[in-house]
Amino acid sequence: MKISEIGEFGFIDAVKEGTLFNPSSVVVGIGDDGAVYKTTEGMEQIAVIDTMVEGSHFIIGKTASWFDVGYKAVASNLSDIAAMGGIPTHIVLSTAIPTDMEMADLTALYEGMKDICKTYGVNIIGGDTVLSKGALVITVAAFGEVESGKAICRSGAKPGDVVAVSHTIGDSAGGLDVLLHGIDGYTHLKKAHQFPTPQIQLGRALVAYRAHSLNDISDGLASESNEIAKASGVDLILDKEAIPCSEELRQWAQSVQKDIYAYVFNGGEDYELIFTMAPDDFEALRREYPYVTAIGQARAGKGQVYVRHEGKTSVLQPTGWNHFHR
Amino acid sequence: MKISEIGEFGFIDAVKEGTLFNPSSVVVGIGDDGAVYKTTEGMEQIAVIDTMVEGSHFIIGKTASWFDVGYKAVASNLSDIAAMGGIPTHIVLSTAIPTDMEMADLTALYEGMKDICKTYGVNIIGGDTVLSKGALVITVAAFGEVESGKAICRSGAKPGDVVAVSHTIGDSAGGLDVLLHGIDGYTHLKKAHQFPTPQIQLGRALVAYRAHSLNDISDGLASESNEIAKASGVDLILDKEAIPCSEELRQWAQSVQKDIYAYVFNGGEDYELIFTMAPDDFEALRREYPYVTAIGQARAGKGQVYVRHEGKTSVLQPTGWNHFHR
Repeated sequence: MKISEIGEFGFIDAVKEGTLFNPSSVVVGIGDDGAVYKTTEGMEQIAVIDTMVEGSHFIIGKTASWFDVGYKAVASNLSDIAAMGGIPTHIVLSTAIPTDMEMADLTALYEGMKDICKTYGVNIIGGDTVLSKGALVITVAAFGEVESGKAICRSGAKPGDVVAVSHTIGDSAGGLDVLLHGIDGYTHLKKAHQFPTPQIQLGRALVAYRAHSLNDISDGLASESNEIAKASGVDLILDKEAIPCSEELRQWAQSVQKDIYAYVFNGGEDYELIFTMAPDDFEALRREYPYVTAIGQARAGKGQVYVRHEGKTSVLQPTGWNHFHR
Repeated sequence: MKISEIGEFGFIDAVKEGTLFNPSSVVVGIGDDGAVYKTTEGMEQIAVIDTMVEGSHFIIGKTASWFDVGYKAVASNLSDIAAMGGIPTHIVLSTAIPTDMEMADLTALYEGMKDICKTYGVNIIGGDTVLSKGALVITVAAFGEVESGKAICRSGAKPGDVVAVSHTIGDSAGGLDVLLHGIDGYTHLKKAHQFPTPQIQLGRALVAYRAHSLNDISDGLASESNEIAKASGVDLILDKEAIPCSEELRQWAQSVQKDIYAYVFNGGEDYELIFTMAPDDFEALRREYPYVTAIGQARAGKGQVYVRHEGKTSVLQPTGWNHFHR
């Protein structure tokens, strides 16, 4: 059945079940002019918004299924909340849907959103649905909470800070390349691209361990590290060899004879975290979260990023993943 | 200059000035991974989201300018907050922009958003910008507050309630017709279509005067009245002659020999309010807000809407303005 046959209200009825995964704070959910929810005393609210466009951010049947698209549309938003040190609580979403889209595909899109919302106890409290003359456009706005005054901005890096990242970097861009080439295997890379894990728990730990600055790596390490350097007015010196890369990414880069650092610095959509903090706090964090790795230091400067490699130091330009230029 | 030449970061820099019109509650505005804001003790939060698609919701140069589109994209969201009885506080927005769009047009779009945000003291705290392969798609998510437990839902209508609306109904659909015909004059109708006024002050008064149910009229009176009847499980009996219509709409309907009630019942985007309340409370409200008009009564029933006219009563189907079917 096509979406144009079932209509907006029929569609809302079909997807509105099973949307509350932490209902205690929801006063009014889907089905009225607006959603109403309670906030927690002593917490500030976080709001983020992110859009994915079919054919630009994903190619159905090649880089993603409709389920994956729903999952990732939410994941990228939850990652932005993790990048402030917050706990995600609710989302509202909007889809501009091609007239001839199959209901089964649209249902899969919503199942992907519900899947990740269930994992993180996030409520889907509202939405809008319109017809698109072109490709599908999905926008998710997510809300979260963080203890008052404790949100971690990109502008707080201080000279002497350790610069660190979570897990391995560049896997999502590697996975995208694998998918575009239609190659079997490389399941870790593909999963990194299709089902990124928002680093919510680590974001919360970074609040507890007093991290000074924090970004999620959505536009590549080059772009994100430069944002921290520029916003904080400090220089970051990264040690190229220290940046954690997965074995699969090394294998893939070698098999296509591509520089692995193109994925690491200029890839995107890793949704890992890059952060800076005092060395002692970092050591304490690392004992609890062994998947964080120091990749450099912050020092007084003018907001530049440098990469050290085999005794040479070069400037790292912010040129990264920029959907605007695709 | 085209948007593709200036890039995402250049564009954000160009529009991020002058976005906070009530900054006291904003901890982190545009420019980090997420926005952070404070809420007011004793208040619950409202969230709404609404999308407009070029060519479907508006035709540039015919039904709207880019400024108008920005204004209306926010207005429709503020109207949804008014329809819960709330005070709008912040918005986040996302635009999927055609590659060849002129920066001047995009700037006009943002000026329209800033204009209405300034009027209502609403902060623009975040956004996302991506390139569209097709038409422009703009999504706004708006937040607001309402005293805990006081949000007015569509489900609260009670037998004996007065059914009432604000101002006049059908003007926006009339204005759209005038614009599509390219006719001069009819400034009231055109303004109703291009610059709808979210009824925030009235929504707040409806909280104070204990209204039982409330919708904004975004999809036509037939659809909205049926939503209240169905959600509340009561019948609404509307008096056709009592529904307030503007003189301009009468003139326009006569000049094109169209039934005025096609605009009234099945038009859309009026962004006026329809509500039900106890008769005594309505009388008190009307003394303070003379632009509200009683158009019928609620009575025990099965969730139907009836229209009385010249001694006859007929069922009013919910068929209204439905963007899904355009």
